Amino acid sequence: VSGAFAAATAVERSGPDRFEGRIPQGWDVAGNAHGGYLLSLAGRALSVATDRPDPVTVTAHYLRSGRPGPVGIDTEVLRSGRRLSTARATLSSEDHSLVAVLATFGDLGDDATPHPELIDAGPPELPDPEQCERVVPAQPFPPAFMAHLDLRLHPDDAGFMQGARSGSARIRGWVRLPEHEPIDTIAMLTVVDAFPPTVFNVDLPIAWVPTLELTAHLRRRPAPGWLACEVRTRFVSGGFLEVDGVYWDLDGSLVAQSRQLALVPRAD
Amino acid sequence: VSGAFAAATAVERSGPDRFEGRIPQGWDVAGNAHGGYLLSLAGRALSVATDRPDPVTVTAHYLRSGRPGPVGIDTEVLRSGRRLSTARATLSSEDHSLVAVLATFGDLGDDATPHPELIDAGPPELPDPEQCERVVPAQPFPPAFMAHLDLRLHPDDAGFMQGARSGSARIRGWVRLPEHEPIDTIAMLTVVDAFPPTVFNVDLPIAWVPTLELTAHLRRRPAPGWLACEVRTRFVSGGFLEVDGVYWDLDGSLVAQSRQLALVPRAD
Repeated sequence: VSGAFAAATAVERSGPDRFEGRIPQGWDVAGNAHGGYLLSLAGRALSVATDRPDPVTVTAHYLRSGRPGPVGIDTEVLRSGRRLSTARATLSSEDHSLVAVLATFGDLGDDATPHPELIDAGPPELPDPEQCERVVPAQPFPPAFMAHLDLRLHPDDAGFMQGARSGSARIRGWVRLPEHEPIDTIAMLTVVDAFPPTVFNVDLPIAWVPTLELTAHLRRRPAPGWLACEVRTRFVSGGFLEVDGVYWDLDGSLVAQSRQLALVPRAD
Repeated sequence: VSGAFAAATAVERSGPDRFEGRIPQGWDVAGNAHGGYLLSLAGRALSVATDRPDPVTVTAHYLRSGRPGPVGIDTEVLRSGRRLSTARATLSSEDHSLVAVLATFGDLGDDATPHPELIDAGPPELPDPEQCERVVPAQPFPPAFMAHLDLRLHPDDAGFMQGARSGSARIRGWVRLPEHEPIDTIAMLTVVDAFPPTVFNVDLPIAWVPTLELTAHLRRRPAPGWLACEVRTRFVSGGFLEVDGVYWDLDGSLVAQSRQLALVPRAD
């Protein structure tokens, strides 16, 4: 355990398929434990259960809100192959299931052999982090959880924090962990849920967007330092919206893609 | 049961959490049961298990290939809420797990109350279906499974079938079920895996792309008739590629989004 994030997501094996962890105070959004953080907790357990270092594709369905205190993670390995293992996990608190996870883990450091490559997009254009707007906890927004990330938004996309929406359901920015703690692939599961709601930048009557489901695809371990990120929403319809994220490291390499489906509370 | 697709995806409850189905001959890609079809089979069971008509968000991880014959689907409902229920399923054959599924189901016909709406894209521009190229089974490609769909590709994106790649990792086209069988939301789980590999249109040494994981988000029940579809790949890297799909009905409404992560066999 080498930093605050690693400590907050540490788990201990208490049985062949069972792990114990703890949600600390202050890792919440309006009192509820941050969804990406809960996924990192489950990810630590799944990495041990599958004996693979890196999540490759991870899906979480959010069932109930988490509060500070002890949590258990039950895992089940469904298949162990030569390069990849698939498993599921349920993160629960006092017998209430909070998050259900289905994931495939592997080793993204195993990159000796060349792969075919096509990269049909690049990192978002961003001013230096010092020229971006840091997201700092306040009441009622941004949430307390933001103390645990160093998140800097593109000035063109950050006006909503002062009530000036950009008109485009997109947020670009930099993210890293505080105190130079490295972002490993498990911490990426928090990063992919770290940005403020994209719809805060458009003129729709939406005050909160509870995540129903989140899927992350990881392509490589991030290089040290800032990640350049872009999240956007194309479709608010049927009572749902998606948030698509793309995450790049300072080498200019694609680290991850994410998509989540969130509920849009009814306008009535 | 009102058509060939409904018959091929029929399941029978054999216990409180257990369903039985059968993979027919001919629903395969090079001998392996089609992945989207297997997900529809699991989806029928999950719809009964959750007592909800429509998948809202469904993720499948593919563990092993399916062959014609009997399959069992074990389900577990994790949460039943007022509007949505979350459950998981394992589809297996002779004690081998083939597909693991995590899904949230609801009622997409329940649309009396207005929702906030933002639609920042539209259906792909397509010639009439009669001017598009129908995908008909042949040896070794297209696969036998294509007999069970009526799939018509945009002529600009279909040249790869005669060895002329478009240069863009994108395929647009129309899809419907044969004999005017309606596409319900369970059949949509097949549609989101129905298109040929996008990378067949670019100059990369990739001959097959086994799906590791597939997630579909459904926004509404499709109107009768053709669906206008577009699938594309932006990133081939790290030994993986994603395929993003968007599906529209003839009313011009967004029906579904999909994303899958596929393995890219090593170039060596």
